[in-house]
Amino acid sequence: MKMGFHLLVLVAGFSVFQLTGCAPLPKTNPPITADIVSSSKPWDWRLLNPENTLYLELATGRVVIELAPQFAPNHVANVKALVKEHYFDGLAIIRCQDNYVVQWADPEAEKPDLARKIEHAKKTLPAEFDRALDSKLPFAPLPDKDVYAPQVGFSGGFPVARDPKSGKMWLIHTYGMVGAGRDNAADSGGGTELYVVIGHAPRQLDRNVTLLGRVVKGMELLSSLPRGTGPLGFYEKPEENVPIKAIRLAADVPTAERTDLEIMRTDTPAFRDLIEARRNRREEWFLNPAGKIEIGNVPLPTRSANAPAAKK
Amino acid sequence: MKMGFHLLVLVAGFSVFQLTGCAPLPKTNPPITADIVSSSKPWDWRLLNPENTLYLELATGRVVIELAPQFAPNHVANVKALVKEHYFDGLAIIRCQDNYVVQWADPEAEKPDLARKIEHAKKTLPAEFDRALDSKLPFAPLPDKDVYAPQVGFSGGFPVARDPKSGKMWLIHTYGMVGAGRDNAADSGGGTELYVVIGHAPRQLDRNVTLLGRVVKGMELLSSLPRGTGPLGFYEKPEENVPIKAIRLAADVPTAERTDLEIMRTDTPAFRDLIEARRNRREEWFLNPAGKIEIGNVPLPTRSANAPAAKK
Repeated sequence: MKMGFHLLVLVAGFSVFQLTGCAPLPKTNPPITADIVSSSKPWDWRLLNPENTLYLELATGRVVIELAPQFAPNHVANVKALVKEHYFDGLAIIRCQDNYVVQWADPEAEKPDLARKIEHAKKTLPAEFDRALDSKLPFAPLPDKDVYAPQVGFSGGFPVARDPKSGKMWLIHTYGMVGAGRDNAADSGGGTELYVVIGHAPRQLDRNVTLLGRVVKGMELLSSLPRGTGPLGFYEKPEENVPIKAIRLAADVPTAERTDLEIMRTDTPAFRDLIEARRNRREEWFLNPAGKIEIGNVPLPTRSANAPAAKK
Repeated sequence: MKMGFHLLVLVAGFSVFQLTGCAPLPKTNPPITADIVSSSKPWDWRLLNPENTLYLELATGRVVIELAPQFAPNHVANVKALVKEHYFDGLAIIRCQDNYVVQWADPEAEKPDLARKIEHAKKTLPAEFDRALDSKLPFAPLPDKDVYAPQVGFSGGFPVARDPKSGKMWLIHTYGMVGAGRDNAADSGGGTELYVVIGHAPRQLDRNVTLLGRVVKGMELLSSLPRGTGPLGFYEKPEENVPIKAIRLAADVPTAERTDLEIMRTDTPAFRDLIEARRNRREEWFLNPAGKIEIGNVPLPTRSANAPAAKK
């Protein structure tokens, strides 16, 4: 009995893409996601820039984060400065709220004697909730409307909203996005406490917090953590905190120890085909293709740069 | 340093509502979520009907599921028949796909000699992807548009879409919704394999699978399970499967052992106020209220029926 085994083809499991070898022509017309990925060309993919890639090292493995300096230049620079001075090493994930976020910080932040000292980086920064709309930045729009913003789509691999009226654009809170926690004042954040979305896209946070990157590998190491039992999902006992071994900039890690990840580009015809394939699912299992897609349901395929398909 | 500690007020952590005692008048105008809950009246809440409530018993605790016979009468009846004959007891969660679903089934389903036998229930059923739109059913519409459906809102505590043109209404795939896995044929499901959404609302599944209920307590027991490393998140080794001690109908459980849960009604002015409070977040932390809300971001508050607020 195989009921349900075909239920959920490819929606989140992009590792299956790595199974494809050489590049066949699309098998279906219009193509389905697997065809688009397997027939993609090397130029449909990009390597991460090690100068804008963080490795969050946990006992369970590595979480890879791509930074977004084009949207939060000051926060990205500050987080990189904090990483350079090993600010995060030995701190911990102190919060895991179901269907919402995990968050890491200095567990001793409230105790002046014990709190981690900042050497050269900044403790707080002015908010970078949005930026000027730059039509020269690549933008792959979604053809369907969005509940929250006039335009949504992808730019450089990031989910982005645009408002031509106000002349602004901003990053969107979807699964895996990384932001800088803050207190009530807009300029009370700066990157010393970071959170990652582990649930349904909390779009009410858009333009309320500075987003600065996205997890591109290792989400399951965060999303499967025990939920905190305190208010807002904070862990109640120190021993529940999840230690951070280190956060490192990929460029500071020996080449052999880096994660060999490729990400599908979002400024290509292949990605436009992917969006269309996700709007109307043509896999055999789907009986009623939606004909629409919401930004949180667009996948961003990744693969090993050493996979056969990547070397073709 | 409290950066981030105020980040995410009340968005998913409804247990905090249980801290409120007697009913003060709203403190803010318009009220925020905490005010709406603390000033709610007994008739703004309802008890679960034990005849339509399942307890999924795991070693880690109990997951409470409210069934939706008004949307999937045959599937609900069949799942209850399976429960009555203890079909699920001793089976297992065999799949956990990140940002998607957990799924339980008979791990030996493919082995005729070992597969769990069905005594009186049905193995498969015709699909119940949607039903006739009945304007007599309560419906609390969201004022904002939806990407996928002409109308969305809540009916009897469930997220629902309606299409006046086709005269249909159907349950929506949001976090915690429970559905019946199927193979490629529409009528190949029936409830022997059930899945629960643990990630961003996979709306592409709407009208492709029969939804039949919603988890109202214990989601964290499912969402924090280790992710399966096989394709589609299936566990690869039998010892990774998560055993199901039993699934029981609440009505068959002694009263003293039942979970004393109340759920906020969705057909009341208080719930309409809640929607408005979530569209425009007035908590001090929020600097830019969205002015919109998407169905996946509307919370459904629950509380203990024995909490002081419930006894006022």
